[in-house]
Amino acid sequence: QSFRIAVLKGDGIGPEIVDATLRVLGKVEELFNVKFEYKEGLIGGIAIDETGTPLPDETLELCRDSDAVLLGAVGGPKWDNLPTDKRPERGLLKIRKELDLYANLRPAKVWEPLIDASPLKPEVVRGTDMLVVRELTGDVYYGEPRGIFEEGGKRVGVNTMRYTEDEIRRVVIKSFEIARKRRKKLTSVDKSNVLEVSGLWKQVVEEVSKDYPDVELEHLYVDNCAMQLVRRPSSFDVIVTGNIFGDILSDEAGVVVGSLGMLPSASVGDKHALYEPVHGSAPDIAGKGVANPIATILSAAMMLKYSFGMDKASDLVEKAVEETLNQGYRTPDIYSQGYNRVGTQEITDKIIEN
Amino acid sequence: QSFRIAVLKGDGIGPEIVDATLRVLGKVEELFNVKFEYKEGLIGGIAIDETGTPLPDETLELCRDSDAVLLGAVGGPKWDNLPTDKRPERGLLKIRKELDLYANLRPAKVWEPLIDASPLKPEVVRGTDMLVVRELTGDVYYGEPRGIFEEGGKRVGVNTMRYTEDEIRRVVIKSFEIARKRRKKLTSVDKSNVLEVSGLWKQVVEEVSKDYPDVELEHLYVDNCAMQLVRRPSSFDVIVTGNIFGDILSDEAGVVVGSLGMLPSASVGDKHALYEPVHGSAPDIAGKGVANPIATILSAAMMLKYSFGMDKASDLVEKAVEETLNQGYRTPDIYSQGYNRVGTQEITDKIIEN
Ligand SMILES: CC(C)[C@H](C(=O)O)[C@@H](O)C(=O)O
Ligand SMILES: CC(C)[C@H](C(=O)O)[C@@H](O)C(=O)O
Repeated sequence: QSFRIAVLKGDGIGPEIVDATLRVLGKVEELFNVKFEYKEGLIGGIAIDETGTPLPDETLELCRDSDAVLLGAVGGPKWDNLPTDKRPERGLLKIRKELDLYANLRPAKVWEPLIDASPLKPEVVRGTDMLVVRELTGDVYYGEPRGIFEEGGKRVGVNTMRYTEDEIRRVVIKSFEIARKRRKKLTSVDKSNVLEVSGLWKQVVEEVSKDYPDVELEHLYVDNCAMQLVRRPSSFDVIVTGNIFGDILSDEAGVVVGSLGMLPSASVGDKHALYEPVHGSAPDIAGKGVANPIATILSAAMMLKYSFGMDKASDLVEKAVEETLNQGYRTPDIYSQGYNRVGTQEITDKIIEN
Repeated sequence: QSFRIAVLKGDGIGPEIVDATLRVLGKVEELFNVKFEYKEGLIGGIAIDETGTPLPDETLELCRDSDAVLLGAVGGPKWDNLPTDKRPERGLLKIRKELDLYANLRPAKVWEPLIDASPLKPEVVRGTDMLVVRELTGDVYYGEPRGIFEEGGKRVGVNTMRYTEDEIRRVVIKSFEIARKRRKKLTSVDKSNVLEVSGLWKQVVEEVSKDYPDVELEHLYVDNCAMQLVRRPSSFDVIVTGNIFGDILSDEAGVVVGSLGMLPSASVGDKHALYEPVHGSAPDIAGKGVANPIATILSAAMMLKYSFGMDKASDLVEKAVEETLNQGYRTPDIYSQGYNRVGTQEITDKIIEN
């Protein structure tokens, strides 16, 4: 069997961590008798430098023609002063919309060997294993009208929060499906005590829930959820919410369990899917061989599972990561005294070995 | 000297915690030779029951005629199934708007004797003393158009994020003024990499900052701020942000430092001000004499400072609370083994004594 993977390395540490991940995928090819075909495309700052736009059409075509997209990281200080609509991040927003990647899956789980990396007390965070499903192609990110207008000589900023019932339904169905395969608990997060768009969100969640009587459903207001993530993180299984609330809560959930360098993500639609680490391009350490490739390697593990149906290979990669941590290997970002401090190459070698 | 205080006890534990607070204010009258005149008004569920609306006009008039408003808590399961626009919470939104209470001040500080109540490790949270300034009369809470509409036979939910430059400027000025009296650091939180309304927010912050060269200014994206509040809470001094981001972040900041039962708030405008605890009406423990009155007492301390200019009296109340905690008195919500478990009356007595 063979799969086509679009590889977008991006900026900063992007190339190093993607290269490390491709080495791990090489081992998977060997062990599971599959073939991955890679094609590279430009995205982000490097794409701006070479083509003038953060997401060139060729890259988009490449992604459409592939079975999955593997992305490194985009952005950096070099492009920070560009106007908002020309910045590397626009490449991300555009690719999500163009490929209709409406569900962003953000697992946040505590790795027992790294439990001390969490700012939370071990007894609070222990056992946490949740997945935030963030809607990714609607909400105030894309709603019209938007802009800075003049009214009576004064500037007024406007954005529009907007969801159609179909946009809500598809991501909610996906979340129930995922919850059904996990611990069968879904928390829907909204602000329906104030916002009509949240009122509709909640209605649709209630409607869909009728088809999933086996999944326990809980509704939380977004402010309350922001508290409970810190207070009782281990009580969550799957959380589903809109684009802007999800942006905030998924990052919060990530930091609760510890290191950003460990967090993978998948952005999936009905036809396409993109896998990338949650962390940024870390330009300050780029090229030094010390970047932590684990978030990208775990993103690739998600790709094996969600895009290629290779659940066993996916589990194996996760286990190899866990084993490597158990053996005491740590890149500088997750290093603490008494452990074995290693670079990108070395930790990747260990993971492959395991 | 004499001040008129509108007293809105509200629902659930509201009456008990407000009564306790009035006893503390009685002691302040004695010690500082001032007179407080109280007039009571209805708000929330009890107002719905007695008048059919969560914020009757008489209450609003009473508040307009007072030097400050002291509020208990509103809401409860009894009114939870009313339509959104009839619920007790609407009373809150209306009073904020009608009295133009545009700046919600939410201090979040660690009380050293309660440091173990925080879900965070003591070494992460120790020394945290921040104040979130949340804009309270604009943003997606009030923006038009809003509603659930039909488009091609499908439901569409819409709300509008909207800020004028004047709305932004006044709350930002207030925040710089507050920062100047504290540790001279202001963090402005937005999502200007995606939202135009945030772009305008950031512009106005930059403009205002020219008048405050002595205050260090930092900009954070809201998703990053949600992480840093958990990761490095003690590095924040004053945080200023819009209504919806502030709703989320101020609650998150509150839980980071520990118990909800300890968190006061002030909502201030140019003419009026309202003081209330952050926690809700806790109907499950109402009338049992076990509610923690400290958040309301500390809200009254904020009133002394911000509305009456009685800084010394305010500090004294805070010190009395701290002393009482040091002596080991704890209401059930903040109780842990080895301490002295007391009820509302008793902890209030101790605070008055101190
Ligand atoms: C860079 C930015 C546009 C993006 C977002 O807000 O979606 C980022 O924060 C993310 O979460 O992927
Ligand atoms: C009850 C609700 C309308 C309110 C808000 O969102 O403002 C509450 O969460 C608060 O923070 O005071």
